[in-house]
Amino acid sequence: MQARQETGVTGSRHARGARTRSEILRVAASVASVDGLEGLSIGRLANETGLSKSGLFAHFGSKHELQLATVEEALRVFSAEVVAPTRALPEGAIRLRERCERWLDYCEREVFPGGCAFAATSVEFDSRPGAVRDRLAQATREWVGLLESDIATAMNAGQVCIAESPEQIAFELNALGMTANWQYQLSRDSSVFEKARRAMARAIGPYAGGTRSFRPSGGADHGDAE
Amino acid sequence: MQARQETGVTGSRHARGARTRSEILRVAASVASVDGLEGLSIGRLANETGLSKSGLFAHFGSKHELQLATVEEALRVFSAEVVAPTRALPEGAIRLRERCERWLDYCEREVFPGGCAFAATSVEFDSRPGAVRDRLAQATREWVGLLESDIATAMNAGQVCIAESPEQIAFELNALGMTANWQYQLSRDSSVFEKARRAMARAIGPYAGGTRSFRPSGGADHGDAE
Repeated sequence: MQARQETGVTGSRHARGARTRSEILRVAASVASVDGLEGLSIGRLANETGLSKSGLFAHFGSKHELQLATVEEALRVFSAEVVAPTRALPEGAIRLRERCERWLDYCEREVFPGGCAFAATSVEFDSRPGAVRDRLAQATREWVGLLESDIATAMNAGQVCIAESPEQIAFELNALGMTANWQYQLSRDSSVFEKARRAMARAIGPYAGGTRSFRPSGGADHGDAE
Repeated sequence: MQARQETGVTGSRHARGARTRSEILRVAASVASVDGLEGLSIGRLANETGLSKSGLFAHFGSKHELQLATVEEALRVFSAEVVAPTRALPEGAIRLRERCERWLDYCEREVFPGGCAFAATSVEFDSRPGAVRDRLAQATREWVGLLESDIATAMNAGQVCIAESPEQIAFELNALGMTANWQYQLSRDSSVFEKARRAMARAIGPYAGGTRSFRPSGGADHGDAE
């Protein structure tokens, strides 16, 4: 860990040259994915970006503001990777499976060096009352709500055969993705993603696109695999 | 969060009078369950226990040693709450369900103020190489291995009807308990435990002891609910 902290978590020249607010926040979210929001001091971020502490204070004002901005960046990347590309798909089973598959793939590709920064910061702040936890709790409700909505649509349309409530199944899908993410970080054993896929397929039917291969958005008119 | 830090995470006179190593470590694990191992400075622990920094240095030597000792305490309590009381039960479905139920109950009772300290520290350190992560990864393998072993026994004895590998089902049970723990911390919505119970019951059959009510250890001779 010492060595990594000295060379910087991103280890890239690009990061050290970060100048725009969005570049700085991407570095911040990468740091947070590994060492947490509490590991994200202004000093640490200065070291990672090559910017001065005073310049970073000018950007963010305080560690608390930096934490909140970093959470927004973590949520933005999660949304851009998992939610936005699937927004145009038909509601129901197709979109649900695509979102689950994209989520697992995003965790496995380590878009952030410590896995999903949304997941990492959620667990870090789960028992710390304040604006950071409130924002992460809200975002978790929204994400689980997206899953739930597609499950309900899929059930009503007869696309899936589920004898549980959408709320129950959404909890289970979220549990599988979250756990695959942190277990992979802990063990470096990528079979956890396959286990999550198997369990998700048992809960909502198999993913039609195949492991880690996505249909183009025109695939929305594919028949349901059920 | 400020108010809690000032009054101490444990908020008890007992904690402030902690003098023995085991009392100090119980306070340390309570702090870690809320604010993480990184939030557990010697100074913070001095404030929580009422002991001097120099006295705590004499006990632990360094923050790293304190982190490792705190992880051992987290694991000790987890084992005492979940594993040890079920050790004498017959291998297989009865012990498996009792362990799952005890695990959820231990998380819901908040034996540590921030939920399961083993879970919290595992996720905190999942992407930070070093002795702390190694220990937590080993303990996770052991815990999931205990679940897996009872699942295999239950399958071989025909106590459960499962069309998946023990490894797969153990991953799923672990995902459900972990997620119920952190989602409860994040949302304060205790229905997550009922969701975890429902999903576990679907995976391995219902818990015979009823929600949050345990058989006495003499209950090992009860018939299997399958």
